[in-house]
Amino acid sequence: MSDYDDAIRLDAGDGAGRRTGTFSEDWMIGNAVNGGFVMATGLTALGQHLATDPAEQTAHSDPVVMSAYFMTASAPGPFAVTTEVMRCGRKLSTGQVSVSQAGPDGEPIERMRAIASFGNLEHVDTLKQSTPPDLPPPERCVSADEAPPEFLATMRFLERLDLRLDPATAGWALGKPSMKGQIRGWLRVHDREPDTTLLMMALDSLPPVAFDLGILGWTPTLEFTGHIRRRPAPGWLRVSLSSENVGGGMMEEDASIWDSTGALVAQSRQLCGVRISSGRNG
Amino acid sequence: MSDYDDAIRLDAGDGAGRRTGTFSEDWMIGNAVNGGFVMATGLTALGQHLATDPAEQTAHSDPVVMSAYFMTASAPGPFAVTTEVMRCGRKLSTGQVSVSQAGPDGEPIERMRAIASFGNLEHVDTLKQSTPPDLPPPERCVSADEAPPEFLATMRFLERLDLRLDPATAGWALGKPSMKGQIRGWLRVHDREPDTTLLMMALDSLPPVAFDLGILGWTPTLEFTGHIRRRPAPGWLRVSLSSENVGGGMMEEDASIWDSTGALVAQSRQLCGVRISSGRNG
Repeated sequence: MSDYDDAIRLDAGDGAGRRTGTFSEDWMIGNAVNGGFVMATGLTALGQHLATDPAEQTAHSDPVVMSAYFMTASAPGPFAVTTEVMRCGRKLSTGQVSVSQAGPDGEPIERMRAIASFGNLEHVDTLKQSTPPDLPPPERCVSADEAPPEFLATMRFLERLDLRLDPATAGWALGKPSMKGQIRGWLRVHDREPDTTLLMMALDSLPPVAFDLGILGWTPTLEFTGHIRRRPAPGWLRVSLSSENVGGGMMEEDASIWDSTGALVAQSRQLCGVRISSGRNG
Repeated sequence: MSDYDDAIRLDAGDGAGRRTGTFSEDWMIGNAVNGGFVMATGLTALGQHLATDPAEQTAHSDPVVMSAYFMTASAPGPFAVTTEVMRCGRKLSTGQVSVSQAGPDGEPIERMRAIASFGNLEHVDTLKQSTPPDLPPPERCVSADEAPPEFLATMRFLERLDLRLDPATAGWALGKPSMKGQIRGWLRVHDREPDTTLLMMALDSLPPVAFDLGILGWTPTLEFTGHIRRRPAPGWLRVSLSSENVGGGMMEEDASIWDSTGALVAQSRQLCGVRISSGRNG
């Protein structure tokens, strides 16, 4: 069993719509569990609930779209995930999921709430798709392994990934952001081929695109919506991030992912908070 | 009172989180109430609930982000809207909203469920923004008034708007789509200047971008997420739609809106279902 499959495993709770699990420190980014991993956990729970729902007539085993709102940061340790099936249709089944953890007084604190639809992406025709970016081969890209050890110690999530950034969009790591608002690279999860649930995490796995705009502070995800468009082929994923609009303490981050065959498999847009350092503002 | 303000008026229901209203035929598009109008209705209810919530400390009067899932089409007639306040934070307050209508047996059928966050967009700085599209002046664009009367009779929503499409992206109306997947135009609501709630509707008010790809069938919105970034100045809005990825019976539609000063005020991405006619497939 891969690290990812082990970490995302859920225990049955009391009732069809309640499961429990434990967030591992291995999937932390800074002081919080990676938001993409929290989303993949929520999708796993909702998928398991749907699979046992009597109204679910068809094999809607692939997440197709998810919109997640992050209220508070997830911490390592136990969590509960509650799910509700809203509608089972012919093409899509839709439900809601909430991840919570006990606060200091034992009362549950909601970390993330999301609505998501599942469908079946087994046979997908393509009428039009955006072109995958030209990237140098992975061995000529910048690996996270090259980052300073003291940085990596706070970004344990990066150890779960093989991430190779296009040198043209990694200048921020050397203090020279391109200021274009673009980050591109190759991505794999160690010991695990991608599937449609893992793609939702992959959409939120690269460094924040804010870094390429010289914004190095924390950019918390407020809302994240991902569309999964195809089951990915095994191998490297190509991920491209961009942002066009920064202002009012917020920015959008758009992500697209192509699989090893060059097929567009997922895309997302998230709204992030932006804290501009006083040095930049002043 | 403008037609829009009259149509979106809600009656207090029993309890803080329940309101009722009536969808008018005037806001229908085809056989359903326009989805953007349903979203604006949901935002209005959630905004009213937040304004009276004791946990709400600050004036979070502007919708900032909304993710809506459409389960069934809304019909003219009475509806109920239930709201839940999830979290009141310093910068954002987040809640959930559900719009339902009574089915043939009197049981409620959920039309739309959404999560949304409110904030305050009174003072917004701009660090980076996408460039508004170059459009011919409104008087040299194609007005919906020029469409055949039998078409307009099924699109009553269009009578509420002053919509002027760039001739370069209106060829589909004459059977000559550009096949680029782009529609651009000027938009106003009659007798009403835009505000941040109205912008959410405006993001879903143009003809489907699918038309410019030669896809003239119904493209139902499955999921819609809009980001409101600024309070709009009075006057014309410039709206630009695009789509890059069509396949597997689905497509995304991205929208951006700039106000009369050229400021980016809103953007959205939605996932639509696509029914390709057998003529095109065969």
